[in-house]
Amino acid sequence: MTLVATTDAALDGVHFDLKHSLPRGLQRPPARGLSRSAATCAGWKALAMNLSDLAAAGATPRWFLCALGVPARAEKDLQRVARERAFGMAPLAKRSGIALVGGNIARAQQWSLTITALGEATNPLSRAGASAGDQLLLVGALGAAALGLQLLEARATKLSADERACVIAQLRPTPQLEAGRIAAPFASAAIDISDGLLQDLGHLCERSGVGAVIDCDALPRSPAVRAVEALDTETTGSHPFARALSGGEDYALLLAVPKARAAKLRSALQASQLEAHRIGELTRSRKIALRQGDRALPLPARLGHDHLR
Amino acid sequence: MTLVATTDAALDGVHFDLKHSLPRGLQRPPARGLSRSAATCAGWKALAMNLSDLAAAGATPRWFLCALGVPARAEKDLQRVARERAFGMAPLAKRSGIALVGGNIARAQQWSLTITALGEATNPLSRAGASAGDQLLLVGALGAAALGLQLLEARATKLSADERACVIAQLRPTPQLEAGRIAAPFASAAIDISDGLLQDLGHLCERSGVGAVIDCDALPRSPAVRAVEALDTETTGSHPFARALSGGEDYALLLAVPKARAAKLRSALQASQLEAHRIGELTRSRKIALRQGDRALPLPARLGHDHLR
Repeated sequence: MTLVATTDAALDGVHFDLKHSLPRGLQRPPARGLSRSAATCAGWKALAMNLSDLAAAGATPRWFLCALGVPARAEKDLQRVARERAFGMAPLAKRSGIALVGGNIARAQQWSLTITALGEATNPLSRAGASAGDQLLLVGALGAAALGLQLLEARATKLSADERACVIAQLRPTPQLEAGRIAAPFASAAIDISDGLLQDLGHLCERSGVGAVIDCDALPRSPAVRAVEALDTETTGSHPFARALSGGEDYALLLAVPKARAAKLRSALQASQLEAHRIGELTRSRKIALRQGDRALPLPARLGHDHLR
Repeated sequence: MTLVATTDAALDGVHFDLKHSLPRGLQRPPARGLSRSAATCAGWKALAMNLSDLAAAGATPRWFLCALGVPARAEKDLQRVARERAFGMAPLAKRSGIALVGGNIARAQQWSLTITALGEATNPLSRAGASAGDQLLLVGALGAAALGLQLLEARATKLSADERACVIAQLRPTPQLEAGRIAAPFASAAIDISDGLLQDLGHLCERSGVGAVIDCDALPRSPAVRAVEALDTETTGSHPFARALSGGEDYALLLAVPKARAAKLRSALQASQLEAHRIGELTRSRKIALRQGDRALPLPARLGHDHLR
């Protein structure tokens, strides 16, 4: 067994926003257990960000540690969020089979949750190891979390079912743990899409010494994401796949798989009701190219999330 | 082998202060390799805080992860501190045999370094396991780091050698890793003194279900700490051992050791040029009592560091 460790921080105003009030209809059950307060989503998301890294390694989650940054005079808030099931960490931890084994509390200028997650894998996947010719498979959808954030910031109240799913994708993302574990024996490399497809695919290509061609029509996007992409393109002339290519925080799982093993992996995923979208393949060129049908498309202006902006 | 994991955060303005300018004489070698910038001490201290926890478990350091919080428009600073040997982490990591295996960078309102350290131990020590009658041994000194902070904040310039040692104790504390490893087969419980002796001893007593009596004359204090304690007591009537009992950030190692094994442990430590001070013993009473010779002393008003103040 190999020990796999990852750390990721979620900060108020950056990765979550305690000032967000959740749209009506998401405020109470039966909206998939989503609680009334945005605070109860912060811990879920912080843990999910870390679990998504374990998923990309094909690791089984075991233990995590959580360092809290707490603003001065926030003791009341702290009690409230602790009461609200540890910022929402508890239900995701339980569901994922990961145990809290340590932590820290420090006074800080803003709320933050810095989590380190530990897992075990027999043959851990990494960004390195993929070859030209490998298929690119994606488990999960693109652009939903970024649209969800936009809806929250606009304080949108009348949401379609699909838009609500986007808000849930932003607040309580689902790490693709099962897909990662299933893929580990088949895939040559993997990465989770936290900063946008193009940016994270770029990391995988760089570490594996390859390039990629993406079939944009194959990118999995919900109807709400397709609709705003079409509207954006019409009104501002933006790239027709800008949100699917560059939207962050989807925590979808990108897999590079040698052609000979791709069919087997897809059926193994299907057997667990998981769908893998074939979105392109790796190339020798060391560049990322986009195509739609037979047509080459330019890259969008913005590739993804910059951690320091 | 048991895996030991700990997390601790160091924040600008709380655990270190990038505005501190180091006293002249500490600014350049040969002052024990201390660099010119306070930034190069921040990483050392953040890592030392975590290594001190591993020391208290008797663990051998193996791997660590570091999550950085970086203020907006700090790219220049970031390059500078990265150039300055990763905030000073690198030399301590090398000396301690611990390898950086992961990290994260996020935009934040203040500089912070949240480290998770992993180690291995055959029989890890914890706060639980001590019994009434066990001796209390301390490796390291008390009150120095808090005095060092006071000297930094006062921008004191003419420092005695002993005061300089206090400033170094504040900026670049030494985790008692070797003492922890040597003590592991002998001790019944251990804790590192990060928040002040009384507070951390209280944690050990609570978890072990015991009390303690401390022999104040035996508390290891440098001449500079003794001098300010005497001055404080004379001018403000404060507790004569206030700094030794409540000063934080010394990262000394407190060990509970069954009487029958204490002499063996002390010689094992001495063989490695490590001195253990016998500062008291554990009792059935569930209270912490102080004495000086035959006289009982009251507890000081302030027990130690409160993480939320």
